[in-house]
Amino acid sequence: MPALDRLLRPRSVTIVGASADPAKLTGRPLAYLQKYGFSGAIYPVNPRSETIAGWRCYPAISALPEPPDAAIVLLGGDKAIAAVADLAAAGTSAAIVLASGFGESGPSGEARQADLRRSAGAMRLLGPNTIGLVNVSDGIVLSASNALVNDEILAGKVALVSQSGGILGSLLSRAQATGLGFSKLVATGNEADLDVADFIAWLADDPSTAVIALYLEGLRDPDAFKSAVRHARERGKVVVAFKVGRSESGARSAASHTGALAGSDAAYDALFRQLGIVRADRYSDLIDFPLMLASGRALKGNRLAIVTSSGGAASLLADAAGLAGFETPSPDEATAAKLTALAIEGANLDRNPIDVTLAGVKSETLRTILDAVVSSPLYDAVAMVLGSSALREPKTIGTPLFECAAQTKKPVIAFASPHAPDLLRDFNVAGVPTYAAPEACAAALAALRRAGDPVRAAWSEPVAPAAPNDVSHLLKPGALNEEDSKRLFAAFGIAATRGMPVTTPESAEAAGRSFGGRVVVKVLSRQVLHKSELGGVAVGVSQVDIARTCAEMRDRFVAAARVEPEGFLVQELIEGGIEMILGLHHDPQLGPTILLGMGGIAAEIYSDTALRIVPVSREDAEGMIDELMCAPLLKGYRNRPAADVPALVDAILAFSRMAETIGGNVAEAEINPLFVLSKGRGAIAGDGLVVVKDTGSPAGRA
Amino acid sequence: MPALDRLLRPRSVTIVGASADPAKLTGRPLAYLQKYGFSGAIYPVNPRSETIAGWRCYPAISALPEPPDAAIVLLGGDKAIAAVADLAAAGTSAAIVLASGFGESGPSGEARQADLRRSAGAMRLLGPNTIGLVNVSDGIVLSASNALVNDEILAGKVALVSQSGGILGSLLSRAQATGLGFSKLVATGNEADLDVADFIAWLADDPSTAVIALYLEGLRDPDAFKSAVRHARERGKVVVAFKVGRSESGARSAASHTGALAGSDAAYDALFRQLGIVRADRYSDLIDFPLMLASGRALKGNRLAIVTSSGGAASLLADAAGLAGFETPSPDEATAAKLTALAIEGANLDRNPIDVTLAGVKSETLRTILDAVVSSPLYDAVAMVLGSSALREPKTIGTPLFECAAQTKKPVIAFASPHAPDLLRDFNVAGVPTYAAPEACAAALAALRRAGDPVRAAWSEPVAPAAPNDVSHLLKPGALNEEDSKRLFAAFGIAATRGMPVTTPESAEAAGRSFGGRVVVKVLSRQVLHKSELGGVAVGVSQVDIARTCAEMRDRFVAAARVEPEGFLVQELIEGGIEMILGLHHDPQLGPTILLGMGGIAAEIYSDTALRIVPVSREDAEGMIDELMCAPLLKGYRNRPAADVPALVDAILAFSRMAETIGGNVAEAEINPLFVLSKGRGAIAGDGLVVVKDTGSPAGRA
Repeated sequence: MPALDRLLRPRSVTIVGASADPAKLTGRPLAYLQKYGFSGAIYPVNPRSETIAGWRCYPAISALPEPPDAAIVLLGGDKAIAAVADLAAAGTSAAIVLASGFGESGPSGEARQADLRRSAGAMRLLGPNTIGLVNVSDGIVLSASNALVNDEILAGKVALVSQSGGILGSLLSRAQATGLGFSKLVATGNEADLDVADFIAWLADDPSTAVIALYLEGLRDPDAFKSAVRHARERGKVVVAFKVGRSESGARSAASHTGALAGSDAAYDALFRQLGIVRADRYSDLIDFPLMLASGRALKGNRLAIVTSSGGAASLLADAAGLAGFETPSPDEATAAKLTALAIEGANLDRNPIDVTLAGVKSETLRTILDAVVSSPLYDAVAMVLGSSALREPKTIGTPLFECAAQTKKPVIAFASPHAPDLLRDFNVAGVPTYAAPEACAAALAALRRAGDPVRAAWSEPVAPAAPNDVSHLLKPGALNEEDSKRLFAAFGIAATRGMPVTTPESAEAAGRSFGGRVVVKVLSRQVLHKSELGGVAVGVSQVDIARTCAEMRDRFVAAARVEPEGFLVQELIEGGIEMILGLHHDPQLGPTILLGMGGIAAEIYSDTALRIVPVSREDAEGMIDELMCAPLLKGYRNRPAADVPALVDAILAFSRMAETIGGNVAEAEINPLFVLSKGRGAIAGDGLVVVKDTGSPAGRA
Repeated sequence: MPALDRLLRPRSVTIVGASADPAKLTGRPLAYLQKYGFSGAIYPVNPRSETIAGWRCYPAISALPEPPDAAIVLLGGDKAIAAVADLAAAGTSAAIVLASGFGESGPSGEARQADLRRSAGAMRLLGPNTIGLVNVSDGIVLSASNALVNDEILAGKVALVSQSGGILGSLLSRAQATGLGFSKLVATGNEADLDVADFIAWLADDPSTAVIALYLEGLRDPDAFKSAVRHARERGKVVVAFKVGRSESGARSAASHTGALAGSDAAYDALFRQLGIVRADRYSDLIDFPLMLASGRALKGNRLAIVTSSGGAASLLADAAGLAGFETPSPDEATAAKLTALAIEGANLDRNPIDVTLAGVKSETLRTILDAVVSSPLYDAVAMVLGSSALREPKTIGTPLFECAAQTKKPVIAFASPHAPDLLRDFNVAGVPTYAAPEACAAALAALRRAGDPVRAAWSEPVAPAAPNDVSHLLKPGALNEEDSKRLFAAFGIAATRGMPVTTPESAEAAGRSFGGRVVVKVLSRQVLHKSELGGVAVGVSQVDIARTCAEMRDRFVAAARVEPEGFLVQELIEGGIEMILGLHHDPQLGPTILLGMGGIAAEIYSDTALRIVPVSREDAEGMIDELMCAPLLKGYRNRPAADVPALVDAILAFSRMAETIGGNVAEAEINPLFVLSKGRGAIAGDGLVVVKDTGSPAGRA
């Protein structure tokens, strides 16, 4: 039996440092085990007590009658470390260490945490600095948290894994008030051993769990997280995540100017997209989305019917839904006929919002209306607006609403316009996701739409890296010049503009004649990364101006960079293509990433970029393009010709393959501009920059 | 004494159709007047009663002993119209008509509403289809609303004016639960006479009101609204507005392609900006912002100190604040020294969030910490995070927090991490704005920052329209061709590219020679608005290619437009400028608007446009530029030269003057591109389009 099974469904629990006083923190775990109906054996350990709450108390861990499945360690500091060693020696499967003062509190705490980890040996460890876990489905509480003092915990299909104990408590109290039920609650704390990925992997196979909600501060093992989430998605679980630390992302940005656009939060966002995780943007989403996602319903389209007795509140909801991309079409003829046949005076039943007025707020009438609306093929979801009449007579509206919801697979939700906390909770417990904010209704429906996306082929079918080409001779440490950069890209299948490197203005003129027409002239240098900012790029130079342009360019370059350029590059002029940027960068936490952006200044001014973690699948690459605001341009905007999108997808995949093959040697790489020509004509690198790491090791993957 | 004074502070009130049964809707107004302590005279009118609740009841309005200040009409339909006529005849100052079934219910209702309006004569009218009003400051309720049945209404400095009665009730119940107090509550309903502007103007001079909160569905009289808000702003009132109908704005868009970017919601947004109104984006903002704005504090900068006993919740708040543009710097040395001198074990007092830990949650310690933080010149505002300890012992945290807040003018707010409705209400009532959502804290602080903007000079110092030039000869109904459009712009001071209209390819070639170098060639036609989409524009044409380009262009044009062009336009080529779009459009509700956008496809792809209502002040024009995402480009991005921003401002003002002078004759006007050259070199219209209305009247303002 795996250790995590024993931790989450223990047959026996030892409480090290247990107190007989349930008012004390150290008295709580035993009290909670009893209160929530734990049916296994409890072994309190405390040399100063004989029995606690009817259970025999043991003087030491070594005196326990059998190896316990799980342990709660209520001691701190060195005593916790010693207890963990004793528990491991006693054959305990897993221990929870609640104490703080470890990894989260500076270098000395980190050393203490390493000691703790070592003393656990093969025994699994939750914490330290955690409030423990609650298996709500099976009535097992392994925690000392204050948050569990009051109510019973509502059971439900949502498992919450939080890297912060305080946030777990906050969310639990909010969920209880809102009517959201949980299957499991786990605070992973410092994650000295067991981390968020371990619990996701376990929850993937938990039949009581339909939705896994995550509160994340940062991933210690991204690869384990990826495979755990993939596993959960394959088992049909929906994963929702809130990630704190979004506004500090800028600070961790790379030095390169497109790197600056792809900070750590953007990388997390990419990771979530690639794994099919529904991202929660607001803190309240972490309650609101699971309420909707746990309903087990699917949203097939974006047409919403709003049934109301209050015109004002229905406008609010229609407006919020519209902003989130939903439509609120008027009822189809057949449905409108059914509704108007009810002849409710003053009601507007052939529009949407469907205003039944107060006269329509009778259970039977409302049931007829709701059934007609929900069975209309026009609508993908139905929202009921709860006004003050619902507050006065909750059952009059609740009964027909719950009955209607029970008989359809379409999402049925409600929006409470006045302050109505009890109504909200009751309706949610009854299984109709009900919200106090119109924006929350819309956001939760949008989350349901996102959750319905098929599991992405991202990492389950990665694009196989090309056989390592022999590119080692190109990987000279430092910045490669444009020609060498393009050669490297070419080795992975990305074409480049034709060009000739020359050393003098005179030879540049000769090279220009071989291209004919107007050309591009650039300075060649390994010393300067962004040559265009130093006036080192001239586009559309006439034949007669080539030599003069080179000479002036050299003078400007020398004045600005204080170094002689290696020479010049004369290139064919590409006209009519759409200029994009394609980049490879390393996220400090999540590894190599591919960035696609609109070229020129748009990527920066408008932040029009998309990011994915390597490896990138074909579906991901297509998703990146769709995500860009400039996507319509690529697909043929107004009377412009469509661009060669398949060639752009191939270029993205080539960059991903390059990252997989030699990513360890490349600090960053960028094609700017990448000309995406019209359909069938390909994508061509117009300029390139590669910075090779000085690793001291031979190039290529081992 | 003005009628609105009598309506809001009546000495006598008649209730037409009053019932003796307070459980009935018609019984409520009298019951409410008594419950909330109305001290004036009450005259119930009902032929079937002698007295009601101790008040003598009158058989008819004509039998009243004196002209009442205010009347509540509880009758519907034709009876309401007759009662209004009788009240007017009796010399009543103002009447409130609650009944629905008027303007909101189709053409017959509109006719009924017109009758109602007529029968009121000089008497002022609130409604119909309203729930009435509440003067909370003076304890006067003129309403039959259900929402007033339960609690006392919290008094405060916020006046709420809502165009929807249902929403007024919803907000009132939410405010009561949150601890937001009101001075006045008014539902304006159908606004047959008195509208939202009338009440804003009255509230501007109400000493009990500091903040005016508006729930708007649409403005019937934008000019009255403008002057009322201006008046209120001048009197130091803060105005907050939520406008419903944002997602339907697209439907009302104009036909022209930049017009499509400037739908009605964008016009409202412009109006709010120009009037210094703080816009509420989410429904909950309409409670959250007034809570903050009514505190009477100013936010001088964007540096926020966060004091907490819970690390997780503080991260949430820091993150949300960071996303809203706030900084959370670590304490300065002097403050850090004061804090660390407290020697709280395990506390992190030299960072921000300032984590006092549970050990620091003692009233005296916390008071010392808060005082040290709030008095630090480094911080502009202080936020306290309330964890589960605050729930257990609200006074331990509340007392020092309220005392600290009372002794500073800086904003002091709180964020409640667990579900804590009572705490929230108590803290808000105590004067510390307290929120359940971290994003609400950040948004409310941002609202305070916006409210602190000086009253804009927008309409108080409008740019005087230029003396009407004689442009009447240019205003031929229909679309003007490029040359005529540019002539019109020139009359208002906007320079244009030099160009020569010609009729044949051969004469185009001759014209090109006079410019030298490469040129721009365009087709000339009044028939086609967007000639570039038909291949009617060629940029950078070499001298040798001019004639051929014209011939090909004519063929393409004829094939596409099925009409011969009038000729060709040969123009100088402008290089190096930044291409913008400047447009004049008419919003169906708010009148002429000026649109500024990034040129090319960016305006559409990235929606990078700014809008203002005519007349536009110099400050507005500068604000438009700052609002654009491409503003950094204009101001000198990276090593690029700064553009001639003052010239762009002048061009915007010229367009506004044009709209003021001949806007009645111009359906739309657009300069695309407007080349903004480098500093000191001006802004030049590269192309122009004016569509003149077929009004049949002479040009120019009467």
